[in-house]
Amino acid sequence: MDILEKCVISLEQVKKNRPLVHNITNYVTVNDCANMILAIGGSPIMADEAQEVEDMVSIASSLVINMGTLNERTVASMIKAGKKANELRKPVIFDPVGVGAGPYRNRIAERLLQEIEFTVIRGNMSEIKSLSGLAVQTKGVDSVADEAGGVEAAMGFAAKMSCIAAVTGKTDIITDGKEVCLIENGHPILTGITGTGCMTTALVGTFCGAENDYLAAASAGILSMGLAGEIAQKTLCGNEGIGTFRIRLFDTVYNLNAETMRKEGRIKSV
Amino acid sequence: MDILEKCVISLEQVKKNRPLVHNITNYVTVNDCANMILAIGGSPIMADEAQEVEDMVSIASSLVINMGTLNERTVASMIKAGKKANELRKPVIFDPVGVGAGPYRNRIAERLLQEIEFTVIRGNMSEIKSLSGLAVQTKGVDSVADEAGGVEAAMGFAAKMSCIAAVTGKTDIITDGKEVCLIENGHPILTGITGTGCMTTALVGTFCGAENDYLAAASAGILSMGLAGEIAQKTLCGNEGIGTFRIRLFDTVYNLNAETMRKEGRIKSV
Amino acid sequence: MDILEKCVISLEQVKKNRPLVHNITNYVTVNDCANMILAIGGSPIMADEAQEVEDMVSIASSLVINMGTLNERTVASMIKAGKKANELRKPVIFDPVGVGAGPYRNRIAERLLQEIEFTVIRGNMSEIKSLSGLAVQTKGVDSVADEAGGVEAAMGFAAKMSCIAAVTGKTDIITDGKEVCLIENGHPILTGITGTGCMTTALVGTFCGAENDYLAAASAGILSMGLAGEIAQKTLCGNEGIGTFRIRLFDTVYNLNAETMRKEGRIKSV
Repeated sequence: MDILEKCVISLEQVKKNRPLVHNITNYVTVNDCANMILAIGGSPIMADEAQEVEDMVSIASSLVINMGTLNERTVASMIKAGKKANELRKPVIFDPVGVGAGPYRNRIAERLLQEIEFTVIRGNMSEIKSLSGLAVQTKGVDSVADEAGGVEAAMGFAAKMSCIAAVTGKTDIITDGKEVCLIENGHPILTGITGTGCMTTALVGTFCGAENDYLAAASAGILSMGLAGEIAQKTLCGNEGIGTFRIRLFDTVYNLNAETMRKEGRIKSV
Repeated sequence: MDILEKCVISLEQVKKNRPLVHNITNYVTVNDCANMILAIGGSPIMADEAQEVEDMVSIASSLVINMGTLNERTVASMIKAGKKANELRKPVIFDPVGVGAGPYRNRIAERLLQEIEFTVIRGNMSEIKSLSGLAVQTKGVDSVADEAGGVEAAMGFAAKMSCIAAVTGKTDIITDGKEVCLIENGHPILTGITGTGCMTTALVGTFCGAENDYLAAASAGILSMGLAGEIAQKTLCGNEGIGTFRIRLFDTVYNLNAETMRKEGRIKSV
Repeated sequence: MDILEKCVISLEQVKKNRPLVHNITNYVTVNDCANMILAIGGSPIMADEAQEVEDMVSIASSLVINMGTLNERTVASMIKAGKKANELRKPVIFDPVGVGAGPYRNRIAERLLQEIEFTVIRGNMSEIKSLSGLAVQTKGVDSVADEAGGVEAAMGFAAKMSCIAAVTGKTDIITDGKEVCLIENGHPILTGITGTGCMTTALVGTFCGAENDYLAAASAGILSMGLAGEIAQKTLCGNEGIGTFRIRLFDTVYNLNAETMRKEGRIKSV
């Protein structure tokens, strides 16, 4: 079965299983992440108090750790939750928002990588290269890294970390270190709103909560956002801009189905 | 005067008095709650630092405590604020988000019930039954409880707690343990976005800040959300989905008036 | 060059330099602030952990401190970040949300004024008068202060604090204590949604991150929001309300250009 068809099946699994996705995430895009999880067909839990994160992981199908607005309190909760998810063999998805922007953030990212076994790590190329220990210039939380050599970097990182690396950019790269999927959907306007990365990670978490083929699940999550961005952008007219785009993005994810995926998805295995 | 007419008067009181509503709430839906309070005609304060919550309660007309993303710091603030509101005889509304999802959350809910006298408790049937000490399966923060016996459970809970129980679901049940109001407005798409429950509670808090008949105020708050959900859903066409729905929900609450309430409200006392 | 033309140049500087704006802000409107910074052409960083705020200030072009939902932890971060920005001679913008609403908030505002040298302070007249030590009635976070004598109060405050005072209201007043700019754009519906003030401050922070004439930058930020509010309101029809207005506000800021500023801007120096 080709990867596009696997993504379609992943979407059907989400609609059928309605996975409960536990998120320890930032306070900037948390509402968007919860609504995105609902839009695709999952059910969100947002809880970060250390005393209850293990309970939440226990009832959830997957765990998403996003270090956007990390602080000492939530880092402790992330580690506790991640360890519990590992123990219960539930998928854990990591979004290393802004890694490379400063030593504290780098230290926390490193610690999370040491203490938790991640199923999928989703970031832009600058973040993934930072995680890989490569020197890259970081301009805040937006990627400025040269994408040349991206596939090799992603494969090396995935192999080293024994996880799926999901690197979003002009071409998205999803790899377990052996197989590689490339996605050409998306639109630059996606970088014009905050939280596209976080929402993509939340979608990956939802797909991973619904099935066991995590390479397909991660690809399906990223494909969903790329498709939705592309389709939503095409609806804009006149004086519509990022406000309207953001709303249509939710509408499009909500209406996303097998037919649209098959017709518009530009994904391939290499 | 029938309950529908009382709800109409409640709405007029909100528009006239523009109550200041103090919220200690979660970081997922806090923006939606603030905008909902403004949409109906109130004025929101969101403040959760223990050192200032008593000051805020002192200038507010009502207090809403929502335990969505509770943590040790905010729980302390909730208790301090709730006690102050009780002392000043201001209405306190409780939203026990996700109670039943784990022992920590249950312990906090129990503690809040012990330390604070609540005017209205607004939850779904699963949450209200959890609070009542009944064993119910909880799937995250969404209700899966069987609604059979709901009226009796709500009445019993209200009587036991000496408060108004406001239970939202397919049929909303609002009761002080003696009188019961039932509302048939609403639409399933309301569960397709995050924060509908929180926003409903914020509306209840706004109405309770504007008048003293809390059974009518709680009913008016829930009726407003049900009506708005129903009306907003009808405007959707083509590829519109939960993104657009969410925006129209705010538009509809903003435009809600006595005429619409009287014409579309399906509320009765039993 | 007149002030309107200076605002146009400021806007061009934002589009060209894409300033990185570090915000330590509240969890109510943080998403709106990030999207507003993106909409005008900047790039947002939202980070409030004390251990990393100095790193973030170091890579940012400006720092915005908003005390909306302050707490002990974030106040410490604000002070650390503000001092670092002062040391690096980067502009620091302060939004004293709700100052005057209670003694704790007043104490924190006072402390921030003592420890940090602010480039621009943006508030409503009630907040600015509170900061000036004048007795004003505060109704929550909304202004009820009489605007008579506003220009004098703003000038006195700016001179005393050696900063730009940017006071928003029916007429916006921006002054460094000597020069005064007045803006007549805007629409009352801007007060019908939460976060307009915070978003305006975020825009001011973005303009200040792009050029060195801070009086022009502050004016351009406030003019942008006033224009956007006015233009967005005119697009509303039928049953559209604050939900749609809010979305159009982002669309309008996103599409704002020199032509619109020149044609619709009602700003003058006095």
